[in-house]
Amino acid sequence: MSARLGVTYRVRSDAASIEARAQVIAVEQSVEMPLEAIDEPTVLRDIVGEVQSIEVLGDDCFAVRIGLAAATIGSDAGQLLNMLFGNTSLHDDVVLHDVAFPDAMVAGFGGPRHGIAGLRRRAGAQHRALTCSALKPQGLSADRLGALAERFARGGIDYIKDDHGLADQDYSRFAERVRACAAAVARATQATGHPTRYVPSLSGDLNAMRRQLALARELGLDCALLAPLIAGFANMQALAAEFSDVAFFAHPSLGGAARIAPALLIGTLFRLIGADAVIFPNYGGRFGYTPDTCRLLADNARAPRDGLRPSLPVAAGGMTPGRVPELLDFYGADAMLLIGGSLLAARERLTEETAAFTRAVAAHAYR
Amino acid sequence: MSARLGVTYRVRSDAASIEARAQVIAVEQSVEMPLEAIDEPTVLRDIVGEVQSIEVLGDDCFAVRIGLAAATIGSDAGQLLNMLFGNTSLHDDVVLHDVAFPDAMVAGFGGPRHGIAGLRRRAGAQHRALTCSALKPQGLSADRLGALAERFARGGIDYIKDDHGLADQDYSRFAERVRACAAAVARATQATGHPTRYVPSLSGDLNAMRRQLALARELGLDCALLAPLIAGFANMQALAAEFSDVAFFAHPSLGGAARIAPALLIGTLFRLIGADAVIFPNYGGRFGYTPDTCRLLADNARAPRDGLRPSLPVAAGGMTPGRVPELLDFYGADAMLLIGGSLLAARERLTEETAAFTRAVAAHAYR
Repeated sequence: MSARLGVTYRVRSDAASIEARAQVIAVEQSVEMPLEAIDEPTVLRDIVGEVQSIEVLGDDCFAVRIGLAAATIGSDAGQLLNMLFGNTSLHDDVVLHDVAFPDAMVAGFGGPRHGIAGLRRRAGAQHRALTCSALKPQGLSADRLGALAERFARGGIDYIKDDHGLADQDYSRFAERVRACAAAVARATQATGHPTRYVPSLSGDLNAMRRQLALARELGLDCALLAPLIAGFANMQALAAEFSDVAFFAHPSLGGAARIAPALLIGTLFRLIGADAVIFPNYGGRFGYTPDTCRLLADNARAPRDGLRPSLPVAAGGMTPGRVPELLDFYGADAMLLIGGSLLAARERLTEETAAFTRAVAAHAYR
Repeated sequence: MSARLGVTYRVRSDAASIEARAQVIAVEQSVEMPLEAIDEPTVLRDIVGEVQSIEVLGDDCFAVRIGLAAATIGSDAGQLLNMLFGNTSLHDDVVLHDVAFPDAMVAGFGGPRHGIAGLRRRAGAQHRALTCSALKPQGLSADRLGALAERFARGGIDYIKDDHGLADQDYSRFAERVRACAAAVARATQATGHPTRYVPSLSGDLNAMRRQLALARELGLDCALLAPLIAGFANMQALAAEFSDVAFFAHPSLGGAARIAPALLIGTLFRLIGADAVIFPNYGGRFGYTPDTCRLLADNARAPRDGLRPSLPVAAGGMTPGRVPELLDFYGADAMLLIGGSLLAARERLTEETAAFTRAVAAHAYR
């Protein structure tokens, strides 16, 4: 018996067709050819996907669990995504809902190098929730972004991430921006005594991102942001292995395009391939995730799991400081709150509003 | 005035909300923060997305055209996808439908290095449609896959691609497989006189794919397959530039039918970033694309476009040789037909069925 992943798809279908539909998915995500044309017994036994269960969810929706051979994936995170949902993503009646991994595969991918403990250590905050803001808008010069970063840091924030739109544009080169922001945050941390971390956003191909990380490390930075669905899962995996001293924040950009359940994609898969923190759209903000989705996503990111460090859930997307108590009651202390636009909207009072945000998080009494 | 892309989203909304919804998308895909918090006039003028038009499509569906600043993208294909649909992909009421590019951006990306003409030249076929099959199932040894490749080639097929599930697994290492298949196809072409090309599938991170391409080139191969959404757009772009003698086939894996219009993603965007041939699920096969979608996709891939070579549309996915006349009437001669499973189902008659397929394509009288 070879090891298998238990992959759950949610499928729209009528009851009469669901068994055949499930079998089609099992074939599509494994050998992708008529079984009657396969005469190799080991392929039929060990490689072809197998329908393990079909559960009625109601409203013409079914949970179909397919066993996919771990051997078809090996240790390549890109191939993981390819085998989980490559061709089946092209069928619009199917959502990739959940995956149960064999233990050896989880250990092989390895997950976060730093995780929640490493991000707490960087921020010098052992018990409370962590705080984050975002540098934007894109279009500002490196100096202007640096000045913003300094004001956030003077408000005592833990992490300042680049907006994921900041890349290596003509008007704001990565190198120039990162130098300006790293220096600005260093000045502020000297003044405040709080070890605020600047988290630059990586972009381009793998080698461009490697050069960006090398520069960041040279400037004393130990965190970086990237979007796994833009960068490619295998490249995220490679960077996490090569820059093992860097804590990686994963951004959900393009995460909606493929009909993968957010809790699986952002909570489980981003963690599996090495994200130390996973940013996701919080309920009640600019995006449509429900509280249940957010809770499940956060649970997937940080729940104890043999051999994997927990990844820090970072709730983001249209949040306001007024929601801090509600959100910390909801997520607990093993979380990071990311508030960008509504702090920037304070304009000349940015540092003061940031300080109020960080104080509210520090003062929260967890239930 | 800075150059802008005209990006059309299809949005589900009621009529009373659509103007506000359009404005939200324009902000989300550019500065991602409250406009009232931006005091830099050049950002407000040149960087913030602008709603250019809203068209009623009926049934609570609208076509919203947003002008996005070309400067936010530059020449990075990953950043292109990030700015076109990064955060907005997370909203399930929006589909990325179409993009009108500034000429300078199209020229900057450069598109296919070989395109239809280069793929015709490799196959020694100037006027007819081209033919392709697929090596599978995964799980076979390198030698078994090589033997299959030889039998396809002896049937006179133009291109033999790896199944996109073939990666660098323990049971079929890339190097071993590609050596076996390249040698097998070389033997067959010596016998047939027809210059069949073997197209290995690339996987892993950028540097793994570079090593794979270097080996392929060393073995005399001049084509390769990769899935841009798995590999990452920027990495596809980097490989097409570095291995400019290689013709690239783009696979639609993870292409998610529902949220990016297939004609845009596979026809336009894959071409833009350098795919010489684009594989897509044909209508009436295993996938749900309509004939209209397939026609538009093929048009986008190959229509004359200033400065870009045409990319070859490759219709695939559950096709049978019996459909050759219908499909060639539909697509014309500037197309490739990819038939995998139904040729493999012929088992011991694989070479003969392949020969019948290639003869049918060669003999077709175009209307």
